[in-house]
Amino acid sequence: MQTLTFQPLNPQIFAPYGDIVSPEMGEKITVNDGMATRFRDLANVELNGDNTRTLISIFRSEPFELPIKISMLERHPLGSQLFCPLCARPWAVIVADDDHGKPTNLKAFRLDGKTGINFKPNIWHHTLICFEETSEFITVDRDGDGNNLEEYYLDEPMMLVDSL
Amino acid sequence: MQTLTFQPLNPQIFAPYGDIVSPEMGEKITVNDGMATRFRDLANVELNGDNTRTLISIFRSEPFELPIKISMLERHPLGSQLFCPLCARPWAVIVADDDHGKPTNLKAFRLDGKTGINFKPNIWHHTLICFEETSEFITVDRDGDGNNLEEYYLDEPMMLVDSL
Repeated sequence: MQTLTFQPLNPQIFAPYGDIVSPEMGEKITVNDGMATRFRDLANVELNGDNTRTLISIFRSEPFELPIKISMLERHPLGSQLFCPLCARPWAVIVADDDHGKPTNLKAFRLDGKTGINFKPNIWHHTLICFEETSEFITVDRDGDGNNLEEYYLDEPMMLVDSL
Repeated sequence: MQTLTFQPLNPQIFAPYGDIVSPEMGEKITVNDGMATRFRDLANVELNGDNTRTLISIFRSEPFELPIKISMLERHPLGSQLFCPLCARPWAVIVADDDHGKPTNLKAFRLDGKTGINFKPNIWHHTLICFEETSEFITVDRDGDGNNLEEYYLDEPMMLVDSL
């Protein structure tokens, strides 16, 4: 089985797939009489289609252990999807390019627990992968009419490994 | 100076002011092949007025120590505002009723670091109060045209105290 390893995350490499939700990425504004800093506009929340609203949820995920067999990716044609860890524990994101409706060129990133991710609409990604302990994430995505979920089972599953 | 003490938070008492953002409050759905639970639709994100979009920010706040002099409340006429702690440290929320444009009947709640809050549009509230250490919160509020901030300096400031 082909292996998939982690690569360093940076805004340039992630830009085609979405936003890195981190204080470092935002416009910095002092607020609250100097008691707080607002790091503003960290993600482009996109809600397309009819009767949309911004949907707030919390995902509670069981931890994974490497290596992980990667069999399926999904995408949301009508809206972005943001995940931000609530527990400061490491997690991982896998995205892929699209080739005529099939995910291709998978990329894996390991994230610290202080960094969130916002997937653009229609970007292939793996479901939530966290490590160490049961972990919670706040999510911001789309509620609305229409089918907003597409799943693709890989012709050849890959194995996500720590390093080669 | 009049004192303000904390009262127990529960969904009924907070309902006029907004949502409690906590797994306990949502519809519970098993997702990701059984590896995760989605607690769905935890807050009513409201974006009123023109040219609106959902705005994602991170607030980094310095900690407060009780007692705290409460001099000013604010409200956002055109949109809701959600705060969710990213660091599992305790924080506090103060809301108030409105009496012809003036905040009245202040209520203070102490929250654990696993509970967020979404203020409805136009609800008087104090700016972010966290304790112990510099703490980060993800916020979901409104970007758009028009003035979305109103501030009111209390005729008689109050002192938020731990207990009487």
